Amino acid sequence: MDIKKMNQLYEGKAKKVFATSDPSYYIVEYKDDATAFNGVKRGTIAGKGVINNKMSNLMFQLLEKNGVKTHYVEQLSDRETVVKAVKIVPLEIIIRNVAAGSFSKRYGVEEGRQLKNPTLEFSLKDDALNDPLINDSHILALDIVSEPELDAIRKLAYKVNDVLKEFFAGVGVKLIDFKIEAGRLPDGTIILADEISPDTCRFWDAKTNEKLDKDRFRRDLGNVEEAYNEMFRRITNA
Amino acid sequence: MDIKKMNQLYEGKAKKVFATSDPSYYIVEYKDDATAFNGVKRGTIAGKGVINNKMSNLMFQLLEKNGVKTHYVEQLSDRETVVKAVKIVPLEIIIRNVAAGSFSKRYGVEEGRQLKNPTLEFSLKDDALNDPLINDSHILALDIVSEPELDAIRKLAYKVNDVLKEFFAGVGVKLIDFKIEAGRLPDGTIILADEISPDTCRFWDAKTNEKLDKDRFRRDLGNVEEAYNEMFRRITNA
Repeated sequence: MDIKKMNQLYEGKAKKVFATSDPSYYIVEYKDDATAFNGVKRGTIAGKGVINNKMSNLMFQLLEKNGVKTHYVEQLSDRETVVKAVKIVPLEIIIRNVAAGSFSKRYGVEEGRQLKNPTLEFSLKDDALNDPLINDSHILALDIVSEPELDAIRKLAYKVNDVLKEFFAGVGVKLIDFKIEAGRLPDGTIILADEISPDTCRFWDAKTNEKLDKDRFRRDLGNVEEAYNEMFRRITNA
Repeated sequence: MDIKKMNQLYEGKAKKVFATSDPSYYIVEYKDDATAFNGVKRGTIAGKGVINNKMSNLMFQLLEKNGVKTHYVEQLSDRETVVKAVKIVPLEIIIRNVAAGSFSKRYGVEEGRQLKNPTLEFSLKDDALNDPLINDSHILALDIVSEPELDAIRKLAYKVNDVLKEFFAGVGVKLIDFKIEAGRLPDGTIILADEISPDTCRFWDAKTNEKLDKDRFRRDLGNVEEAYNEMFRRITNA
């Protein structure tokens, strides 16, 4: 792809986003930096950027094959990918199949409890407010997205869950929960953006319930790099 | 009504609930005790129990006339009322017409901002967890109520808002937001329970935006008793 990386538009906790010579595209660059608890804990996971880049791209391609529109265009290098230029919707979109993490703490439910149905929750992306939980009626009342957009996001999230849950089950991994983000194309279409990786999903080994995700970093469980490598090994052998 | 007050079943922050000689009924007794911020702030508002008892009963009768089923049966005394014996659903049901209080803080929205639509939110009633916000999919996943019950609660809440908003507008008061609770009758019917008072609603004078509710106590604004009295005067002159 004949595209030039231009000025940096944004630097997040785990990625940088660059403008390109074509206004329809951005280049995303994945870093090894890891943060947790809204930036309170910081560190590095060696090689994480490469794994998250490649894994996300594989997942986006899988999702595209299953009818989910994503921002993925083309992998440029180990850490860089061309994506469609979207305006990110300021919501963290979280699907949970099994209780864990902040859900377990918030509602006093033991980690690992199978939920009766997958849950969909939104957090308002706002570091200063600590990304507060927000419900559908709040989102509409504050005009964050329109009702048709909210419907599109809801459908997108559940579809991503269906596809990923089945895929990961096939490689011996339980998809406990995950966070995605959505973006708007210039024509208003809502598509999947951000990434799908052990940074943004909880993956538990289907047999042992061993954690194969960023909780190893958050909770100082050790073998952090090994967990990311193991996830990558499983999906590329699939 | 020929009914005897029996043993106390429950003492809450502002009310006591007693069993009666008839298992279909409870007696509620309203106290002058006031608490805020999940019990962190405590005090007394002289005469509050009498006003909240009488005002709630008037509101329940108004709602019944408008087709809303409530737990109200009969006022026994200044502070005591016979209500239907229900099992309280462990959710705080909150409708907001205008941004205020925890909503404003949570989402960084100035108090007094008119919302595009009334919002409905639920908090899980659990003091130890600090009554966390909970959405529809969480409620169903944790089996707190069934889907038909959730629909019934949603309809009930919006209907209460429609009736009350119009009524209070007629007495020069803006209904900013309110909290209600729902209960299940033995046959499973969901009805309105708890109370409707300046403890559980935000009331602002329509012309001056003067607060006529418990925020005067929460925020040490003074004239607390006067605000409760003024609200009672307005609704009984209506």
